[in-house]
Amino acid sequence: MKKLINNVENVVLDQVQGLVASRQTLKLNQHPCYIWHEESPRQVALVSGGASGHEPMHTGYVGEGMLTGAVPGEIFIRATPDQIYECASKVSRDEGVLFLVKNYVGDGMNFKLAVELLHADGVKVGAVLIDDDIAVNDSLYTSGRRGMTGTVLVEKIVGAAAAKGYSLEQCEELGRRVNNNCRSISVALSPCTVPAADQPSFELGNNEIEFGIGIHGEPGIERIEFTSANDVVDKMFVALKENIPYSRTLPVWDKEEGGWDDLESSVDDFESEHDYIAIVNGLGGTPKSELYVVYKRLAENCERENFRLARNLVGEYCTALNMEGISITLLKADKEMIDLFDAPVNTAAMTW
Amino acid sequence: MKKLINNVENVVLDQVQGLVASRQTLKLNQHPCYIWHEESPRQVALVSGGASGHEPMHTGYVGEGMLTGAVPGEIFIRATPDQIYECASKVSRDEGVLFLVKNYVGDGMNFKLAVELLHADGVKVGAVLIDDDIAVNDSLYTSGRRGMTGTVLVEKIVGAAAAKGYSLEQCEELGRRVNNNCRSISVALSPCTVPAADQPSFELGNNEIEFGIGIHGEPGIERIEFTSANDVVDKMFVALKENIPYSRTLPVWDKEEGGWDDLESSVDDFESEHDYIAIVNGLGGTPKSELYVVYKRLAENCERENFRLARNLVGEYCTALNMEGISITLLKADKEMIDLFDAPVNTAAMTW
Repeated sequence: MKKLINNVENVVLDQVQGLVASRQTLKLNQHPCYIWHEESPRQVALVSGGASGHEPMHTGYVGEGMLTGAVPGEIFIRATPDQIYECASKVSRDEGVLFLVKNYVGDGMNFKLAVELLHADGVKVGAVLIDDDIAVNDSLYTSGRRGMTGTVLVEKIVGAAAAKGYSLEQCEELGRRVNNNCRSISVALSPCTVPAADQPSFELGNNEIEFGIGIHGEPGIERIEFTSANDVVDKMFVALKENIPYSRTLPVWDKEEGGWDDLESSVDDFESEHDYIAIVNGLGGTPKSELYVVYKRLAENCERENFRLARNLVGEYCTALNMEGISITLLKADKEMIDLFDAPVNTAAMTW
Repeated sequence: MKKLINNVENVVLDQVQGLVASRQTLKLNQHPCYIWHEESPRQVALVSGGASGHEPMHTGYVGEGMLTGAVPGEIFIRATPDQIYECASKVSRDEGVLFLVKNYVGDGMNFKLAVELLHADGVKVGAVLIDDDIAVNDSLYTSGRRGMTGTVLVEKIVGAAAAKGYSLEQCEELGRRVNNNCRSISVALSPCTVPAADQPSFELGNNEIEFGIGIHGEPGIERIEFTSANDVVDKMFVALKENIPYSRTLPVWDKEEGGWDDLESSVDDFESEHDYIAIVNGLGGTPKSELYVVYKRLAENCERENFRLARNLVGEYCTALNMEGISITLLKADKEMIDLFDAPVNTAAMTW
């Protein structure tokens, strides 16, 4: 295995140190590991994190107009409760802290624990669970749906809202609304290799692709024969469009009393004659040029269905190490979301 | 071979159509293929191009503050003279057209022919040849040094200068000055696969890397054993720092009389106590996180030598399809270059 790392024990810290060295505004705490940036004390602090290996998610999104702090776990391993708790304690202000959490069992557990610890400290805190990946609802590896590239849009849009002075409750409601209007699906053309494992995380035949792959290499919906980019994109689009609106119970923290309530929450329908924000995302090993082949076909599909592509991102936003493949995300966006998407942002991975 | 393309004959057009679909300000001419954007008629038009497969170079750099037009050749094949000529004719204004050309025999020939055709049409035209890759001076595949990731800095800095109203002669002089202060070197951990070839362009052993690889898979300086990211970066840094100042004769177009003159031109020395702009560039298949391991070690090397890293880019700027590997570029930058680097830019691949 050749990887541009030094040793597997130290790989995440090495990477994060490099990121912080490259941007003057970022600050690093090494033990436990988290990064943050100084911002107005008069806004909600946003913290995200979880397994490393999905860069630029989440560390690349810390900065003005997006995340206040991020906690990188080891490669494909959740962040620890003390990482999350200490990062949030560092950045919390009067307006409170909001966690943006991809829906994996381990992440959910550790962020929930951090919420409880912060509440005990008297910190106003909330959490939004993100479950945009429509591939599987439950499996050996996941409870409910997985969080994926849609997380980038939640972080961008809620980040802009926080910078504009939205309250914690408003940020939380907005985050849930973005998540409920957001769907992602991915395919793998080749597996990824975790440094510590030293071998590919699964195998694919010469002409096989995994439809609905998870970003840690979790199984998707089916293995299919690869024919052409257009066929793959068409199949992904149908999956996104026809996804049956999905209801599930999400945990919500009671900020006054403490304790978790159940929120019955539905994924919204996709509709024609509506604005959408699209992400065509490379999973790590896919040439950028191919992402534009995908975007072209996605745009054709959207045009046929009268989905108006109001904004788009084409690039690497949520990866799975060196996996060859892509994800497509569609967010049914209202004017508020589009305005917040357009708001200025200044991070390592997203700047405008 | 699985690639997110539809057919090898159409791959570049598909990609460029996707790019243009994703950005409202870009315009496409299909036959011959070139893209451009409308800008002030009162500035020098900048045109670059060459083989596809290096995305986002060059098409991703068309837009405000950078290129006016770009001509994408087929994958790893130079642009044709009529592509170049027609693109330049489309975007040329009173202030003239400047070509920014990576130094490969075929590119040089075709851009020179386009210069002669434009001159015959009465268009004021100039060209800067870029040869920042220090790996090889001459080889079977190249005459002189190859052009590589440093091209991004020439395009960014001269693009900002053109937008500020520099004359054609000033843009040309600035472009040569940036090139003469700019050095790049790359390594490959794995080969790339050209769609039409359907097999990797070369082979590397399990633990071998190619030091000084070219961005079309041309041979480098040597094959070495891979030990660690830090060892690789240290060796690249030494190569960049100790590169012996290099004189060569570059062609310069006589704008008044027509005809090519020889310009004796030297690569400038690298010095301590000076500002530098660095690019840590992924060649296509390298996870973004690993680029930060590389940046960290580069920054340590620069600090030891008192090279001040005034600015940096870490990402994919000049790729070789799906090749795993990186390039490092260092530009010894004066205040004018840094100010122009900082100037606003709005393109698919670079925005601030």
